[in-house]
Order: sequence, then structure tokens, then C-alpha cells
Amino acid sequence: MKNIKLIIEFDGTNYNGWQIQKNGIGVQQVVEKAIKKLTGKAVKLIGSSRTDAGVHAKGYVANFLIEATIPGCSFMYAINSFLPKDISIIDSEEVDIDFNARFHCRSKTYSYSIINRKTFPAMSRYYYCHIKQNLNIDLMKEASRYFLGTHDFSAFKNNGGSRKNPLKTIYKLDIEKVEDKIIIYVTGSGFLYNMVRIIVGTLIDVGDGKISPEKTQAIIESRDRNEAGMTAQALGLCLEKVYYWFLSVDTPGSM
Amino acid sequence: MKNIKLIIEFDGTNYNGWQIQKNGIGVQQVVEKAIKKLTGKAVKLIGSSRTDAGVHAKGYVANFLIEATIPGCSFMYAINSFLPKDISIIDSEEVDIDFNARFHCRSKTYSYSIINRKTFPAMSRYYYCHIKQNLNIDLMKEASRYFLGTHDFSAFKNNGGSRKNPLKTIYKLDIEKVEDKIIIYVTGSGFLYNMVRIIVGTLIDVGDGKISPEKTQAIIESRDRNEAGMTAQALGLCLEKVYYWFLSVDTPGSM
Repeated sequence: MKNIKLIIEFDGTNYNGWQIQKNGIGVQQVVEKAIKKLTGKAVKLIGSSRTDAGVHAKGYVANFLIEATIPGCSFMYAINSFLPKDISIIDSEEVDIDFNARFHCRSKTYSYSIINRKTFPAMSRYYYCHIKQNLNIDLMKEASRYFLGTHDFSAFKNNGGSRKNPLKTIYKLDIEKVEDKIIIYVTGSGFLYNMVRIIVGTLIDVGDGKISPEKTQAIIESRDRNEAGMTAQALGLCLEKVYYWFLSVDTPGSM
Repeated sequence: MKNIKLIIEFDGTNYNGWQIQKNGIGVQQVVEKAIKKLTGKAVKLIGSSRTDAGVHAKGYVANFLIEATIPGCSFMYAINSFLPKDISIIDSEEVDIDFNARFHCRSKTYSYSIINRKTFPAMSRYYYCHIKQNLNIDLMKEASRYFLGTHDFSAFKNNGGSRKNPLKTIYKLDIEKVEDKIIIYVTGSGFLYNMVRIIVGTLIDVGDGKISPEKTQAIIESRDRNEAGMTAQALGLCLEKVYYWFLSVDTPGSM
């Protein structure tokens, strides 16, 4: 029996998230079908996390157990030949039989991409959230440091996810601006339902002058969802990387 | 009578180029229709150049004459409300009545985007050409300098375009690499049919070790299309900027 770990890139535009859905198609079932076509065997993929409909991934991690002669490193090419163009296995390897992509996950980095200009971005419309108001990046950076560390993030959780411990640790929160594009990178131990998107929505309100940077601390402490900003659109969110080792808060180079 | 200059961004994936087509839809007719819906008037757009099917633009320039009370700077918002999501007017202004987007054009910058890795890029598939072989960027940069200046570019022209003087000037040719993405920027006085895509195809052959950098000079001098590389895919090409003033060869900051 082999345990195969996959790194998966997917364009979430046409999927209802990673997990198998009652309505719509999840990425998971498309990859499972491809593996079945390849090997003739029905496997169960263990994914590192659920993802919302429309969210993308550059480094999603999943694993599955299989009796097969194919070497671990060859699965990527073999599975890709049965996948549609919006899903691509970018790496595969055989790992320890006990490895579990979900339970051994220690942290994740998400990116959130914004295009900040007056007119709609024809060429970036699939992967960038369009914000018309001119955002002040310095205010956003000032606010971002309040998120670092371990907090009760109940103010940044929508109803609908599974019940979870609201204590989460943010290790890193970086904001980059290049021309009219703003990219926010958030690395954390785990995330409540819609947590990254609500953090981003709050940072957008800060950049727009609706919330002062210092108020961010009071919003976190309130543990009240009504105090935080809107839930930013799904299409700007991308799971960049999943870590299977422990990080520490804002250590340079820990990415 | 007003002369309105538009800067247009478009995702060329679903268009047969800029110009009005017998088969398929050109971007031009979609914008003309939007202006008609807005103003009730049939206008004729003068575009800075033809573009191939599937090619994108971030800074296409067009102008049109119209009797209208709308201020020049307001046309962008007004026209956008009648456009599909893959076309966006990013700037508009009233210009001198004699301005002609085609005949007064002095040079253009195109970008060509490559994703250079083994597996198919699910998230970059609309705007990047996927090259599997590992490209040597240093060899490509070495080859790129032979293109600078004024040459007879007949070796870099496919059949099918209108007859043109094959003497063209390349002012700048820069190659940037960030992680697995390579972007080639070419600025020239004008371009023969498929010229940028054949220059890129030749640079890819150089990066792949099939053509030595020095051989590029001999290929240019041959004026023989058979000597140059393949025509790179349309989807990687994007018209970045159109200039209405004269540039000089490789002047830093002339972009």
C-alpha cells in the first residue's frame, strides 16, 4: 500500500470548493474520478481543508492510499492527463503511510488579490477583487499588525462553518502593492469560516478610511461579527501553501 | 464635433482580434455597439492596429468622432456600462480633432508571458503560454540584443498580413523572470504579421538550447522565415502600450 501526497493547483471559478458537494461540483470528486480512470481504483482523497466556492489554490495538499506500481513522483503526470484544464497536479510523492493531509496540517498561507482602480479589470477579472475607492496601503499595513499572534477571532467568523475553537494564531500578514494591484498574504495556524475574507474586508475598510487602524484591535477584542468589515469576494482568495511543520509569529523567512 | 481617445483593456480569449471580422466577433464592433447604445449614434472607431485572434490588450488605443455633450473624461464610465466583462475602457479624453489613433502611432510595447514549468498552469492558462522545457534565461537575454535597432525583419513575418515595409526598429527588448514566469517586453516602431510571436518563438528555441544566441543575428540577416523559430501561441501576447511620440533605441526610462 502506498500513501501518495499531491500538491494541487486549481482555478476555483467553476467549482463549489474542494469538498464533494450535493449541489455543484467539488474539485475533490474531479480528482478522484481522474485517479479512478487512471488506476481503475476508487480512492478517497484526504484534503488539507475545505475551501469556499470560487476560491482558488496554488498549493492545495491532499493524500490517498493506493495499491499501485506507479512510482509516487509519476502520479502527477499520469493524473493530469485525465484532468480538465482548471485543475493541475503540480507535484506528487510517496510519503509515510501515516501522513494525513488534514490532521497533520500545522498552518496555511492564503493570498488575497485586489485590483484597485476606477474601471473594471477585464484581464484580471477571474483572480482579483475589484475595489474602486483608492485604498491607503499605509493605513492597511498599520492595521495588519493587530492581527498577529493568538486571538479569539470570533469577530471574523461567519455562521455556517463547523464549530471550532475560535482561538487562532496569525503568524504573518504582509501587504504588497505593485502598480494598481494589492496582494495580502495571511499565514495562520488555522482559519474560522470565511476568516481570511473578513480580515480582508476589514482591511479594505481601513484602507478606505472607514475604520481607523487602531480600531482593528477593538474589533478583534469585541468578538462581535458585526464590528468587523464585510466578507470580501471569494474570487480574490487563493490557498498558496500548506505547512506540515510549526511556524512562529512573524519570523522573517518563515514563509 | 468631438474627437474622443479611448484606452481599452481587453481579454482577447473570446475575440477574433480587434478588427471587425467576417467570422467571429472583433472587439471593435462590441465597443462600437456600446457607444451606439449609449449615444444613439453609429460611430466608426479608428484603432491603433489590428491584433490577432486571442491576443490581449492592456493599453489599446482607439478614437472616434462624435457630436455629444458628454465630457471626454466621462465616456469611459458611460461606455463601460454597456460592455461585457472582458472589455473595459480604462481612460478617455477629448483630443485634438486631427488625432488619428492609427496614423499617428509611433511605436508600441507588447508583452509576452510564459509559464515555464513541467505541469500545466491551471490558474494562468488564459494569459500565459506553457513551456515545459527548462528555458535558460541568460541565453535568451544574450540573444535579445541582436534584435535591437533597425533591421529587415522578413525572417519574422508570416504570410497573411498586408504588405508592409519589412524595415522595422526594435527600441527595447527586456526579459524578466519571477519564479516560474518569464515575461518578454518588446517595444518597436511597428511589427510585421506575427512578428512578436516569431521573435518569442525564436527566443524560446534559444532558451531551450536549439539555437545559439549568436545565431540570432544570422537568422535576422537571412530574411528567411524558415530560419526563425515557431510562431508562439497567441494567448501569451498582450499589447501593453501605444506611443504617439518617437522613442530611441534602448533608452533607459523610455518605457
